[in-house]
Amino acid sequence: MTKGRPLTHSREKLLEKGIELFHQHGYHGTGLTTILEACQVSKGSFYNFFESKEAYAVAVIEFYQALEIDRWNQEFAQFEGNHFVKLRKSIEQMIEELDSCNENVGCLIANLSGEIGNASPELRQAIKRATEKVVGLMADDFLICQGEGSVRTDLPAALLAQMVWDCWQGALLRMKVEDSRRPLRQSLALLWEHILPPTSSHEFDSVITKD
Amino acid sequence: MTKGRPLTHSREKLLEKGIELFHQHGYHGTGLTTILEACQVSKGSFYNFFESKEAYAVAVIEFYQALEIDRWNQEFAQFEGNHFVKLRKSIEQMIEELDSCNENVGCLIANLSGEIGNASPELRQAIKRATEKVVGLMADDFLICQGEGSVRTDLPAALLAQMVWDCWQGALLRMKVEDSRRPLRQSLALLWEHILPPTSSHEFDSVITKD
Repeated sequence: MTKGRPLTHSREKLLEKGIELFHQHGYHGTGLTTILEACQVSKGSFYNFFESKEAYAVAVIEFYQALEIDRWNQEFAQFEGNHFVKLRKSIEQMIEELDSCNENVGCLIANLSGEIGNASPELRQAIKRATEKVVGLMADDFLICQGEGSVRTDLPAALLAQMVWDCWQGALLRMKVEDSRRPLRQSLALLWEHILPPTSSHEFDSVITKD
Repeated sequence: MTKGRPLTHSREKLLEKGIELFHQHGYHGTGLTTILEACQVSKGSFYNFFESKEAYAVAVIEFYQALEIDRWNQEFAQFEGNHFVKLRKSIEQMIEELDSCNENVGCLIANLSGEIGNASPELRQAIKRATEKVVGLMADDFLICQGEGSVRTDLPAALLAQMVWDCWQGALLRMKVEDSRRPLRQSLALLWEHILPPTSSHEFDSVITKD
């Protein structure tokens, strides 16, 4: 049926569609037929790019993360202040940019982590790599913050990054359940005002308890 | 076909099976047919107990949480020490009791939170209630700890409970992805040794940095 059909679908377009589909339906909920229909692509063309649905999912995860990191770097660069303040402003902007649809969606990688406990080793590895990459980038940031004196130094930057990532996952789950961005804002304020600063500044009264 | 069949399936048995099924396949992955087959129950019998799959899921969540709270209370009571130490020992035991199957499974309520972003309001409300109940119980515990001087008092107990719940969700996701209980042990040590104690004890060197 599709023999000789021109290869109008670039790999990138298939990956973009994959982000959307996995966001909407999860990994298990997105069948190959759905992918083919949504991308208006034949099975043959699809298999020209990806050897399986699983290989496609791995590529989608990597593509999604590259996009998110680009977006983050662009936003981060536009803010003023020390590194710790710029991080907070960037995260605040990220939260405000979530639309009401995203409030139910959250981070693709976190969603897939929850879903693929029993999935294939390849997919799990892809998610593990993506998670480690984010945590690693955050650890680099916190190391800079520790150097500028804005973040506590009694704990290694890598451990702080891990904790912030963990907290963020919990806040994303609460965002979904509460259908509100409040948990994200609350978690950010708690971390940036009370948990991450050097110990001596823990005593400040904060707005977050009134939030 | 099942007319006149004796009502051998108690509501409780259906709920027990529900925990298992939702753990294994998630909410969307568990069709009514699967439920009926797994419980060896007719559609008619099922609808005697629950008016829909959704009402069933709400009841499963409530049943699961009641079981978990009972189990927690029993374990907590057997430990010695101040409240803060007993909490840590109970959580440690909970972690060690996870079998290799559970490592891929985690907390049913957390898994469902990730999955049901776009689910019905009733189901979301059930998950919200379950989450709030756990966080509320933890806040009561931290209030006791603050009274005995084992937990920092610069932040309200409710906010600390929220943060611990958040961290726990992230650690559960990492447990799945890493296929290891290490993230849970690491998160517990970080919280109990560095984040929750009164600020003056933040300076201790800890084993967790070597973990």
